[in-house]
Amino acid sequence: MAMKQAATTAIRALSSSLTSHSSPLLRHLHASAESKKIVGVFYKANEYAAMNPNFVGCVEGALGIREWLESQGHEYIVTDDKEGLDSELEKHIPDLHVLITTPFHPAYVTAERIKKAKNLKLLLTAGIGSDHVDLNAAAAAGLTVAEVTGSNVVSVAEDELMRILILVRNFLPGYHQVVNGEWNVAGIAHRAYDLEGKTVGTVGAGRIGKLLLQRLKPFNCNLLYHDRLKIDPELEKQIGAQFEEDLDAMLPKCDVLVINTPLTDKTRGLFNKERIAKCKKGVLIVNNARGAIMDTQAVVDACNSGHVGGYSGDVWNPQPAPKDHPWRYMPNQAMTPHISGTTIDAQLRYAAGVKDMLERYFKGEEFPAQNYIVKEGQLAPQYR
Amino acid sequence: MAMKQAATTAIRALSSSLTSHSSPLLRHLHASAESKKIVGVFYKANEYAAMNPNFVGCVEGALGIREWLESQGHEYIVTDDKEGLDSELEKHIPDLHVLITTPFHPAYVTAERIKKAKNLKLLLTAGIGSDHVDLNAAAAAGLTVAEVTGSNVVSVAEDELMRILILVRNFLPGYHQVVNGEWNVAGIAHRAYDLEGKTVGTVGAGRIGKLLLQRLKPFNCNLLYHDRLKIDPELEKQIGAQFEEDLDAMLPKCDVLVINTPLTDKTRGLFNKERIAKCKKGVLIVNNARGAIMDTQAVVDACNSGHVGGYSGDVWNPQPAPKDHPWRYMPNQAMTPHISGTTIDAQLRYAAGVKDMLERYFKGEEFPAQNYIVKEGQLAPQYR
Repeated sequence: MAMKQAATTAIRALSSSLTSHSSPLLRHLHASAESKKIVGVFYKANEYAAMNPNFVGCVEGALGIREWLESQGHEYIVTDDKEGLDSELEKHIPDLHVLITTPFHPAYVTAERIKKAKNLKLLLTAGIGSDHVDLNAAAAAGLTVAEVTGSNVVSVAEDELMRILILVRNFLPGYHQVVNGEWNVAGIAHRAYDLEGKTVGTVGAGRIGKLLLQRLKPFNCNLLYHDRLKIDPELEKQIGAQFEEDLDAMLPKCDVLVINTPLTDKTRGLFNKERIAKCKKGVLIVNNARGAIMDTQAVVDACNSGHVGGYSGDVWNPQPAPKDHPWRYMPNQAMTPHISGTTIDAQLRYAAGVKDMLERYFKGEEFPAQNYIVKEGQLAPQYR
Repeated sequence: MAMKQAATTAIRALSSSLTSHSSPLLRHLHASAESKKIVGVFYKANEYAAMNPNFVGCVEGALGIREWLESQGHEYIVTDDKEGLDSELEKHIPDLHVLITTPFHPAYVTAERIKKAKNLKLLLTAGIGSDHVDLNAAAAAGLTVAEVTGSNVVSVAEDELMRILILVRNFLPGYHQVVNGEWNVAGIAHRAYDLEGKTVGTVGAGRIGKLLLQRLKPFNCNLLYHDRLKIDPELEKQIGAQFEEDLDAMLPKCDVLVINTPLTDKTRGLFNKERIAKCKKGVLIVNNARGAIMDTQAVVDACNSGHVGGYSGDVWNPQPAPKDHPWRYMPNQAMTPHISGTTIDAQLRYAAGVKDMLERYFKGEEFPAQNYIVKEGQLAPQYR
């Protein structure tokens, strides 16, 4: 790395020394090597922006990298206006070099946008999960797609455990009683349980799934996991989770099911009517992965029939969820907007990770290997 | 124990053989040794009673011991009507032998009621926490008070961890957005944090506090505890929690504070205005112990000022909480009615524990030592 850095510095010195020349080719070289147009698409904070000095993940916070970027002569445009041909984002598509966005308010990067984005080289996800990008189109166009792997895995795993407990222990009906001036313990207790002794299965045991299983360990549950690969035997033994090769064989065993798989062609709509029917009656489902892994209407129907006893998550299809999204109004839901990976702690980590990757990009250095989602025309294994 | 049981059986056989005699003394002996009047005070389930066959903790479920008690000739009266001189409970005070109640809908056993209860011998708490009994009056009257120690400690500890996460991660504003048709990630994120790396202190590290600390271990927090006694060094090392001898010295260190101490003369009103002021600004407080450990108005004021950043618990003073209890309406509360120890799992355990103690009582056997709260005029150490 040190060698590469030295080389990049030399190239930059060269490029810099050439700027006084006026040949169009050299100007182009300069523009491409030095001054980049970077667009960030984040959620807007409005009155909340000033409430926390560490609130860097919003439009106003702009990942805390504006001064740094501009001091190096880069252009940095930040917006939350991302949908349609009249949007602010669309205006910059033809000449941006780098697009940064988050899963919480994603800039959808379609094949059409990629086609229009003649200067685009790099798509960075501030967070984890790059399904807002048409990854095959990005690969075909030779773009690099990278995320800040690990930046918010703890945040999401903690949030999942919270949601498991909220459903198992039937928290919300009790809270509703409080604010409605009521007191009816039976109305909560008749379907409130301990987590201890229940069977919890995770569909996917990557970074987040493993962290969840580790946090579940002291709760004395039966822990199951389904994934393409078995967890490292040492860790598996330490966590005490059992591998389930066949997803459909795992489903009827689970009192609680947690979705921890990326959204890919294989997982889109994975939980349709038929698969939900294979779950235990009254199953509690937690999904902080991606909304489109579920068949939206199948979840609503199963919550209405009671086959699904509770559904909690922070991911929707699409995002932001429209006012009339049926998950807002189905029984026994404990949903929130997409929040689990954008805690203040997570924001500080993914902002630092984005800055690190931009720095490496400017220097022509490699990113940390695990950050790449699309590199040199290849998709990362979890997206294949 | 086997010896004692054999002896009791012999006494019962003798007593039984005497029932044909008509001497008042013998009738009295019979009534006292064999046929008891047992009153249970539980919460009413109404339409919820039939929804779960394991819902034994309500009036309708009656701990699942009616058939067993009546088959042995005992009288078993169950009610939720417990307040005032016209209540169903009050009617039976003069001649009941055993009173069973729960912390979730407690029969308050005052000195006056103890004075009126000429036949009363045994007060059983289906659950943990016997502060609804005037324990000094009970001790002076020679009554035995016992709880089902351990029956719901896991239930309460799980619930505390849920509440910690709900506050730290700012769950409720997100949920409110969902049901109100809104989507504003910033409105949640500006004060949503990871639990990882935060300092969590428990005031009291008895059975529940220890279980909470064990469950917190994989979250990589700084764990502190204050108690009369240090935890066993082996367990302390395993959990990685640090002992704080001085409560007031611990308070300013804690991002999250959990109350896990019984309500006693020493802990009543422990968290008054002055003590809350010693906490870190923005502290999150979880209290599933007893409402009266807090000064009600001091909590409201601190939530209003923002000195307390969130308050969650299931215990109130009094219970049921009246419609106008200010904790229902203070900002950043995540309260429920008293529910954490009465999950279906907990109900099955404390119903079994009550049946076991009644069985021992009828046989003249000792209870498990840790169940005694008042025995032979002495209060258990945690209530002294």
